[in-house]
Amino acid sequence: MNRDFFYRDKIPVGILGATGSVGQRFVQLLSTHPWFEVVALGASEKSAGKQYCAAVNWLMPTPIPTSIARMEVQACTPDIPGIILFSGLDASIAGDIEIACAEANKIVISNARNHRMDSDVPLLVPEVNPTHIKLVKQQKYSQQGMIVTNPNCAVAGLVIGLKPLMDQFGIELVDVVTMQSVSGAGYPGVASLDIIDNIIPFISSENEKVEQEPLKILGEISNGQVEPAKMRIRAHCNRVPISDGHMEWISVRLIEKATKLEVERAWLEFSGNLQELALPMAPQQPIHFFSEGPYPQPKLHRDLERGMAVSIGQLRAHADRDYTFTLLSHNTIRGAAGSAILNAEMMVKSGLVFW
Amino acid sequence: MNRDFFYRDKIPVGILGATGSVGQRFVQLLSTHPWFEVVALGASEKSAGKQYCAAVNWLMPTPIPTSIARMEVQACTPDIPGIILFSGLDASIAGDIEIACAEANKIVISNARNHRMDSDVPLLVPEVNPTHIKLVKQQKYSQQGMIVTNPNCAVAGLVIGLKPLMDQFGIELVDVVTMQSVSGAGYPGVASLDIIDNIIPFISSENEKVEQEPLKILGEISNGQVEPAKMRIRAHCNRVPISDGHMEWISVRLIEKATKLEVERAWLEFSGNLQELALPMAPQQPIHFFSEGPYPQPKLHRDLERGMAVSIGQLRAHADRDYTFTLLSHNTIRGAAGSAILNAEMMVKSGLVFW
Amino acid sequence: MNRDFFYRDKIPVGILGATGSVGQRFVQLLSTHPWFEVVALGASEKSAGKQYCAAVNWLMPTPIPTSIARMEVQACTPDIPGIILFSGLDASIAGDIEIACAEANKIVISNARNHRMDSDVPLLVPEVNPTHIKLVKQQKYSQQGMIVTNPNCAVAGLVIGLKPLMDQFGIELVDVVTMQSVSGAGYPGVASLDIIDNIIPFISSENEKVEQEPLKILGEISNGQVEPAKMRIRAHCNRVPISDGHMEWISVRLIEKATKLEVERAWLEFSGNLQELALPMAPQQPIHFFSEGPYPQPKLHRDLERGMAVSIGQLRAHADRDYTFTLLSHNTIRGAAGSAILNAEMMVKSGLVFW
Amino acid sequence: MNRDFFYRDKIPVGILGATGSVGQRFVQLLSTHPWFEVVALGASEKSAGKQYCAAVNWLMPTPIPTSIARMEVQACTPDIPGIILFSGLDASIAGDIEIACAEANKIVISNARNHRMDSDVPLLVPEVNPTHIKLVKQQKYSQQGMIVTNPNCAVAGLVIGLKPLMDQFGIELVDVVTMQSVSGAGYPGVASLDIIDNIIPFISSENEKVEQEPLKILGEISNGQVEPAKMRIRAHCNRVPISDGHMEWISVRLIEKATKLEVERAWLEFSGNLQELALPMAPQQPIHFFSEGPYPQPKLHRDLERGMAVSIGQLRAHADRDYTFTLLSHNTIRGAAGSAILNAEMMVKSGLVFW
Repeated sequence: MNRDFFYRDKIPVGILGATGSVGQRFVQLLSTHPWFEVVALGASEKSAGKQYCAAVNWLMPTPIPTSIARMEVQACTPDIPGIILFSGLDASIAGDIEIACAEANKIVISNARNHRMDSDVPLLVPEVNPTHIKLVKQQKYSQQGMIVTNPNCAVAGLVIGLKPLMDQFGIELVDVVTMQSVSGAGYPGVASLDIIDNIIPFISSENEKVEQEPLKILGEISNGQVEPAKMRIRAHCNRVPISDGHMEWISVRLIEKATKLEVERAWLEFSGNLQELALPMAPQQPIHFFSEGPYPQPKLHRDLERGMAVSIGQLRAHADRDYTFTLLSHNTIRGAAGSAILNAEMMVKSGLVFW
Repeated sequence: MNRDFFYRDKIPVGILGATGSVGQRFVQLLSTHPWFEVVALGASEKSAGKQYCAAVNWLMPTPIPTSIARMEVQACTPDIPGIILFSGLDASIAGDIEIACAEANKIVISNARNHRMDSDVPLLVPEVNPTHIKLVKQQKYSQQGMIVTNPNCAVAGLVIGLKPLMDQFGIELVDVVTMQSVSGAGYPGVASLDIIDNIIPFISSENEKVEQEPLKILGEISNGQVEPAKMRIRAHCNRVPISDGHMEWISVRLIEKATKLEVERAWLEFSGNLQELALPMAPQQPIHFFSEGPYPQPKLHRDLERGMAVSIGQLRAHADRDYTFTLLSHNTIRGAAGSAILNAEMMVKSGLVFW
Repeated sequence: MNRDFFYRDKIPVGILGATGSVGQRFVQLLSTHPWFEVVALGASEKSAGKQYCAAVNWLMPTPIPTSIARMEVQACTPDIPGIILFSGLDASIAGDIEIACAEANKIVISNARNHRMDSDVPLLVPEVNPTHIKLVKQQKYSQQGMIVTNPNCAVAGLVIGLKPLMDQFGIELVDVVTMQSVSGAGYPGVASLDIIDNIIPFISSENEKVEQEPLKILGEISNGQVEPAKMRIRAHCNRVPISDGHMEWISVRLIEKATKLEVERAWLEFSGNLQELALPMAPQQPIHFFSEGPYPQPKLHRDLERGMAVSIGQLRAHADRDYTFTLLSHNTIRGAAGSAILNAEMMVKSGLVFW
Repeated sequence: MNRDFFYRDKIPVGILGATGSVGQRFVQLLSTHPWFEVVALGASEKSAGKQYCAAVNWLMPTPIPTSIARMEVQACTPDIPGIILFSGLDASIAGDIEIACAEANKIVISNARNHRMDSDVPLLVPEVNPTHIKLVKQQKYSQQGMIVTNPNCAVAGLVIGLKPLMDQFGIELVDVVTMQSVSGAGYPGVASLDIIDNIIPFISSENEKVEQEPLKILGEISNGQVEPAKMRIRAHCNRVPISDGHMEWISVRLIEKATKLEVERAWLEFSGNLQELALPMAPQQPIHFFSEGPYPQPKLHRDLERGMAVSIGQLRAHADRDYTFTLLSHNTIRGAAGSAILNAEMMVKSGLVFW
């Protein structure tokens, strides 16, 4: 039965990989969520059976929610409770577990990269490509089981910045140079000896993800398939010594001419069309544009709209189709757990979640 | 009389702005120099009369040289001793003082930006544009007095990386995105509250300098004038929380096709033609190229060849004329004091310094 | 008339030094305060006349409150509006301005050090020495005008940690070694070149403040004078490269014997007696004690209870009267603006504020 | 045959754990050593057979020495070549391997903690307890085989600072609060997420080592046994976000009265008695004392005397027997590889090394 989701009962959800760094963000953000209630915490065999507070090396700046601290951690098996399973699993194991859960009738909302490029799996950013959700109809895992993914942490903000420009002027070429925080590498992730007073100009497989995922997200669905966007993207990813927030220098060549004012207006008027859905995790304004000042900056703006907004500044016009700008988004919220939750919210509103 | 510079007497030199951060590098590098002997330390009126060790807030990781610690600081007046004056003055005051010194028959080797773009002032990088030194013949300050400059801290490394490509293939377009260390802003410079766990996507006037200075350096002299190089450069400069070393992502569009191997070879074979001059400050190999690994990195490579080498890695071919790569150089050595000293060494070898 | 402060009108308050780093915290914390309404922003002559958003270099991670962004900044003169004036002025100018304001009938709640040790000025921490508020009766500035201060940023947390031990066991000796964040030095404060990858084992005048202020705060009032506490405190203050939060290693020699359990219980049972006053800024639990784990840590715990709680861990018993532990508190909230606001709240509840 | 060590042949040495962070320091420091020649590089089974440059994740700011880059890595077996074996092995495996090597007639100079407190193993700091070297006579591993250790990275500097005070005035009590850099934890060691913008007030087993090792080092040999020093030490160890250098706040209670001047003189006159031995690794002056200024600082002073000197400042007299001060030493040079090499040099001079 698809109960009205304003009904007093919350939707029971589980978290796969609940002790990892993305898993902890899920715990933090879901513990006060108006629609979802965490009923299961999945982690590795060695954590299974322990209380969450004993199994986790908690890294969030807010305390472990009291409602969750004493819950018992379970192994990540397909029969883990929860209508929806949020997956913060490491890519080395996510692939198989997520499929097994989908086959066991679970709605898997995954942050892992494994199934992002599968042709029947939506790579979803609700403000950008909400119609892609219908790809799930092609999935044959089980009655209700399905897998929906959100993009790489550096891609989530990027596509929100590009979407209004693509819609209004078309985009031919994109160059992206990222300066990514250490939390993007999970935990333990980057060794402090490697990054204190240093920059690392390479992140494994990251250039490829930033070059490919946006094409799927910005693509059109035609005949049940995503036709990738036609633009060409080049990406170069750097790791820098900051804790949270990914900065990106972006250069675009538009297909049609645009004035600087038109570019600014495209961002300012971009709403993402989520307002009337009243999704709890959605930002009121997806893009915050700074027309002056040395902005955006990670420390000042990564937490805007509880980490779900994208900040843009440093816009320069180099020719009537050539623009460069700086974009910032929070990598573990907008770029991971927060976006996954927003995806789940949208699926609830779309009538895809029965409980 | 132009004495043989192998003569036992060293050339007496002074330092303008000796207590500032670039001035301290001059002190550090010149105190053991085989040709030059520091005979004067110029600083502000309020420091004049004090011993150097009392006037300076010493920031170098090696102690104040004992030969200099007790020297008395003088005001920066034109009669300050020294055949050569190395200027680490702040741009707010460097312009007039440097001219007054040149008029007083001093050879001013300046790191300040004020006179860099003057048509009769060499903007000199010995490995790149040694013939530009002859511009000084047009200067009319005094018998021997002249001004020679070195480029901005983010430009010094950039032009060394571009020079071999320009010579062999021609360059049409350049995009530069910098990640610059805090020492580039002098002292006190960047406030720690602004940069700990943060990135600032703007440095005042820096984009302009990185877009313009290379055109002069890479230009040809024709009819006694520098004809700027024809390429177009776009720069976007960021401040990041590291102490020393400027990283740059660089995208070039060549005029002629080149294979990746040819690009690599252009760098590896680039000698800068300084070997036979045996200049003490010159790197043995101006460019260190990393064909694999997550390199270059500031902490590992900024001090290569005592901070005078440029490191390049992350080379990617995107099309037969389109390449991107990462370049690193030490901003206060290769990008400031070290380059200025190398300029002075070259002028000595060129017979321009009489003592 | 002393109106009921549950009356719908808020108490009009002004901020002195509103563009500084403590002033910005005042703006941030007061903009949503249930009792107070910011009606005036005082700053330097050069900021006067500008809109706040144009005059300030905003450093907080939340945006400038919209209710305040467009307010006009005024000079810090005694006729500045507001029943209460919160002072985040620099000590170099705070002394005279605060007196002039008190003489003009203002209630000055100051974070500056100038009047902290004045015999008729309360150095107030509501959880610790609420009765000291009555010292203001000896002030003769004007009808209602008075000055109340809060302690140094490293002292505020320290006295909360010591108070329960002093009350139950007595304290004879205290050693404090601090590791203080850069925000404690204001803005621009510590130069990034001085602190990236570094520690500075000296903060001007700080050892003295940490050794003297607690004695006044922990003292008893007798004959209208504060009789300083008898313990002896030695402090050594270090600056470390973190943005917010002061860590302190503390060693105490108690007067009476205590078991480790008794020490823990003293902290856990410490309520600060503010619960029934329902002060908006008061923490529910002033001390959070960690009996295990590598805690407290600035990044994890500085924001506990909106930055107003003190965190303690690493308790070790060395002898039956000798204990060491680690204490953390947020230096610009508990150690500055937050404590000042709590002081103002307490004064309202004490019937000292008429409006 | 004990050949004159001025003989042209260098002493062949091997490095155990050559790819680890301490092992890399051994490689860096030994590659230019006048007495020792690296003939073997021992590491884990998975590295064995590879060239050193392929097996190591090189972290030093100078390039891999060319003489070593192409050497083949071997497994850490007792028949590894080298008269002396320098051990930078992790404590989890060092214990057994080092014994096996000693039994195979090797002189094992170890930085690992495993055998430091063994009654027949010298815990040697040549400037402090050179006579302890004779403990090796009690070792029965083999003809020439033996194990000699150097102390924990936070202890090496501490005992050098304490030794002159103990000798002249006696020491009753010591409190040590450390601020230790991340390189002390090896590689990968501390996760960047844990330490960027943070302090961790706990390091596993470290308090115990700092409390116990100095007692052995500062003890006297009597009847072939080390009689531990009688003082009581309390230590509290913190991890801070700096790359290299351990800072320590130290409080001492002397047994006899001393003036501040006498304390300073004790340090200034402390020579360590190594001058006439002319050991290449020995600092000219073991202790650098700063009587004024905000010193010592890690970034400025950790590399003094190639990282082998100890820096002291912030001396305060609290009573005629109570002093506090700040001490700094380089944790991977003075506190690890450099001290081990100095130990080996001393053993050569003592006639204990035959080759």
